Amino acid sequence: MSCKHLIDLNDFAVEDWKSIVSLAVKIRQSPADYQESCRGKLLATLFYEPSTRTRMSFQAAMLRLGGQVIGFDNPQNTSISKGESVKDTIRIVSGYVDLIAARSPLEGFARAASLYAGCPVINAGDGGHLHPTQTLTDLVTLQEEKGRLDHLVVGLCGDLKNGRTVHSLIKALGQFAGNRFILISTKELTLPDYLKHYITARGGQFEEIPRLEDAMPALDVLYMTRIQRERFNSPEEYARQKNIYVLDDKKMKLARPSLRVLHPLPRVDEIDLKVDNDPRAIYFDQAVYGMYARMSLILHLLNNPHPKEVPLGREYPGVRCANPNCIAGREPYLPQTFHKTESDLIACDYCDEQVYLGEEGK
Amino acid sequence: MSCKHLIDLNDFAVEDWKSIVSLAVKIRQSPADYQESCRGKLLATLFYEPSTRTRMSFQAAMLRLGGQVIGFDNPQNTSISKGESVKDTIRIVSGYVDLIAARSPLEGFARAASLYAGCPVINAGDGGHLHPTQTLTDLVTLQEEKGRLDHLVVGLCGDLKNGRTVHSLIKALGQFAGNRFILISTKELTLPDYLKHYITARGGQFEEIPRLEDAMPALDVLYMTRIQRERFNSPEEYARQKNIYVLDDKKMKLARPSLRVLHPLPRVDEIDLKVDNDPRAIYFDQAVYGMYARMSLILHLLNNPHPKEVPLGREYPGVRCANPNCIAGREPYLPQTFHKTESDLIACDYCDEQVYLGEEGK
Amino acid sequence: MSCKHLIDLNDFAVEDWKSIVSLAVKIRQSPADYQESCRGKLLATLFYEPSTRTRMSFQAAMLRLGGQVIGFDNPQNTSISKGESVKDTIRIVSGYVDLIAARSPLEGFARAASLYAGCPVINAGDGGHLHPTQTLTDLVTLQEEKGRLDHLVVGLCGDLKNGRTVHSLIKALGQFAGNRFILISTKELTLPDYLKHYITARGGQFEEIPRLEDAMPALDVLYMTRIQRERFNSPEEYARQKNIYVLDDKKMKLARPSLRVLHPLPRVDEIDLKVDNDPRAIYFDQAVYGMYARMSLILHLLNNPHPKEVPLGREYPGVRCANPNCIAGREPYLPQTFHKTESDLIACDYCDEQVYLGEEGK
Repeated sequence: MSCKHLIDLNDFAVEDWKSIVSLAVKIRQSPADYQESCRGKLLATLFYEPSTRTRMSFQAAMLRLGGQVIGFDNPQNTSISKGESVKDTIRIVSGYVDLIAARSPLEGFARAASLYAGCPVINAGDGGHLHPTQTLTDLVTLQEEKGRLDHLVVGLCGDLKNGRTVHSLIKALGQFAGNRFILISTKELTLPDYLKHYITARGGQFEEIPRLEDAMPALDVLYMTRIQRERFNSPEEYARQKNIYVLDDKKMKLARPSLRVLHPLPRVDEIDLKVDNDPRAIYFDQAVYGMYARMSLILHLLNNPHPKEVPLGREYPGVRCANPNCIAGREPYLPQTFHKTESDLIACDYCDEQVYLGEEGK
Repeated sequence: MSCKHLIDLNDFAVEDWKSIVSLAVKIRQSPADYQESCRGKLLATLFYEPSTRTRMSFQAAMLRLGGQVIGFDNPQNTSISKGESVKDTIRIVSGYVDLIAARSPLEGFARAASLYAGCPVINAGDGGHLHPTQTLTDLVTLQEEKGRLDHLVVGLCGDLKNGRTVHSLIKALGQFAGNRFILISTKELTLPDYLKHYITARGGQFEEIPRLEDAMPALDVLYMTRIQRERFNSPEEYARQKNIYVLDDKKMKLARPSLRVLHPLPRVDEIDLKVDNDPRAIYFDQAVYGMYARMSLILHLLNNPHPKEVPLGREYPGVRCANPNCIAGREPYLPQTFHKTESDLIACDYCDEQVYLGEEGK
Repeated sequence: MSCKHLIDLNDFAVEDWKSIVSLAVKIRQSPADYQESCRGKLLATLFYEPSTRTRMSFQAAMLRLGGQVIGFDNPQNTSISKGESVKDTIRIVSGYVDLIAARSPLEGFARAASLYAGCPVINAGDGGHLHPTQTLTDLVTLQEEKGRLDHLVVGLCGDLKNGRTVHSLIKALGQFAGNRFILISTKELTLPDYLKHYITARGGQFEEIPRLEDAMPALDVLYMTRIQRERFNSPEEYARQKNIYVLDDKKMKLARPSLRVLHPLPRVDEIDLKVDNDPRAIYFDQAVYGMYARMSLILHLLNNPHPKEVPLGREYPGVRCANPNCIAGREPYLPQTFHKTESDLIACDYCDEQVYLGEEGK
């Protein structure tokens, strides 16, 4: 692994991703071979906001490797929430355990935690920022179900503007050759430009198709996500458009037999329940692949021969991250550092929010 | 086992019950022999309402078999409660684990869960409907303490009209020869007629004795339960009658040395604390037997050679269950099916509430 | 061990303390040797108030010994809180497990629990009364970091009047020869007289030095604690005095290279964050030593060759403990007994609150 922690999938090399995916496939084939791999090891699941499904997936992963789990999932009721700094909590807990999986509503939380942890830290979701084990889950699912991560026609449907999982998946699949993205959303919820550039800069292709129905025939993979009602311009527009983005049996009829439908779950009503019976609907299997993805990740991090910290960028005098949901604004002892982006701007090391410096600031 | 899941004790054959009771006795005699029986297996305790005692009993049971446990006990604070269907939750969780124990305030919850689970489901209590592992606990207790499940004189004291555990125990013991039930309650809280018929139809006997004192001398077993204050017609009547149904040392003096006093716990004030010191009071041992009962049940379900689903009944066009606390009314995708009762009526497959069809409906 | 339970460190002989400390050191040196020591054993962590750090420390300790853990940490949401007596809860739970660690806001809770438990009980904190595993943690820390528990110059800084951990540590270190205590606090928050007598009665020495700065040069050990803002006479006095009791780099410069700084954690602002980088600041290591202290304690209690109950004192007709936070006032079935103190008064067996009997009461 190129890094001690998994905060952002991009901290790892693509070779690392492949290695994680490939071990996940192996574990699923013969789980009994790995049943004692983590005997004597302890994982802490520190969940500063409830996320029962993700937490259970991590717990099941560690326990199925023969390890053990401690943690909390309800910090409102715990002493942890009462004023102790993240630094102190993490230093103490990392003295008890071998590995931490941290989830928080604050963006950059896991990065901040990794600065003080004596053990590897996994980002189990930091606000709307990153959720790298979901993306690993998606990669394992594609490898298992399609046999490859390249040369796929991938439909992405829903709120492409704000969807964290969609952005991460594009960044990941964009690293593999020959992938073509079909972007299916309302005009208001299209993919941000920087991600379109990201795709084409790496030789990938994309196409925007506003109606799911029209996109179906071409797809190898359909990644469904939810469009929240509030994202539409008006209730009338919601009423008019919502069915365009709901997957049902009728639309499934237009697709290839080899299509696979993914969804990060939970779903609300963007997939009709009848679709569950279609063998091409694999979102429940995807959740199980997620457990194997996490088992593989845990093994990689616990057996990392060259654990390296992610280097922080540098401070810019007087400049602080303006994101109100960023950990940097909440924990004053954190070094407020920034890194350069692809477009030569600077972005917060914790939450990746960009800062526009005036001329003198550069 | 005649069934993959334990939703209702009656889904199992009486032979199955005997097998579970007999293995529970064996495990208690030599727990070390079973200490590794579930190595590598995972139980999920999904508790949609808190029930600390039952949850700890299941957890202790699984851990003492060498297995592991994940789950939640506080869904108000979890994402699970926020709109995800039972179907989706159960499909995901049953991908992580080998066995589910589910508790819910909704009647029929466990049956609904079993329709979508890829693994066996145990009903750990569904509202006021069923609590089959309590009844297994009671059977193991009687086997251990009385050496048999038949030819017992069993006093049942308290709210016999509404008491879920009392009804289940009668249904269970009614299957064994020669049991005689002494029913001890106020006039308003007598056993429902259908259970009296149930007893006599199987060759059992019952007798109604309104005062606990008068019943004591004849009993092999006394099963105490609570009468809630609200169940009395008036505060005056409560004040007048309550002591009749409180077990104390004075009443214990009237009973045989071989009497055994059971209680499903928690008790409030229906058993005087001084009775705890009487060796015939075995309700705390009963709780421990419950752990062994659950250990045995877990082993039976995980090693079930012929797991069969409980068949659903059929739909009746336009007919829906009227029980506001039934899962069928909350989760619209559930098939609303009904089965025939002994008295040739139809009853909801989830909560067993009877429906009275008009002539045309039949 | 001189006692079956650990309620109050003074229930154990000093030889027992030494044995616990010495095994803790051994386990830390070769944890793998103890990885299976508790295989098949079950610990219940019954936390009637949240204390995430202590709970995780107990859980990590038991899991690292190969044992398992059940329990609760949030009783407001559990059925346990709804009216069941401590007696009943403890009798049931001790039927499931081999060991109980109990925490409660009520003073004397663990003692009360121990009266009904079929297994050893560890006091994991009972209100402002006792927290013996914190003191064991402190002793292990001193043994590891200073190589001895005697002939130490120990500075104690903060609220010495009300600080539970400070009082316990003095009682413990007072048993070892040649310890000298430097008491650093405001005039209002000095150590209670009975503890000063305790020190000198055992041949120890103490000195009161009002400014931390002045005390620094002489210290082998500095035990920092928090002074709550409310403890000062006025906001003005708080503003004037608070920095005197804040440890910072400047004050650290005055101390010996061999100084060790301890803190029971969580800290608020009584230690400047920059001090964390000083190798003499070992409060985070102290938390880890706490895990080893608990591992050692667990092994001692589970392998206790002569488990003895702590004897209760006697009842005094008409006399009840007046402490409103004492368990004795909440659970009416508890025997209200008292023991003689060193100064020949009587004190409640649960919370140690002294009772002043009139002449006729003696």
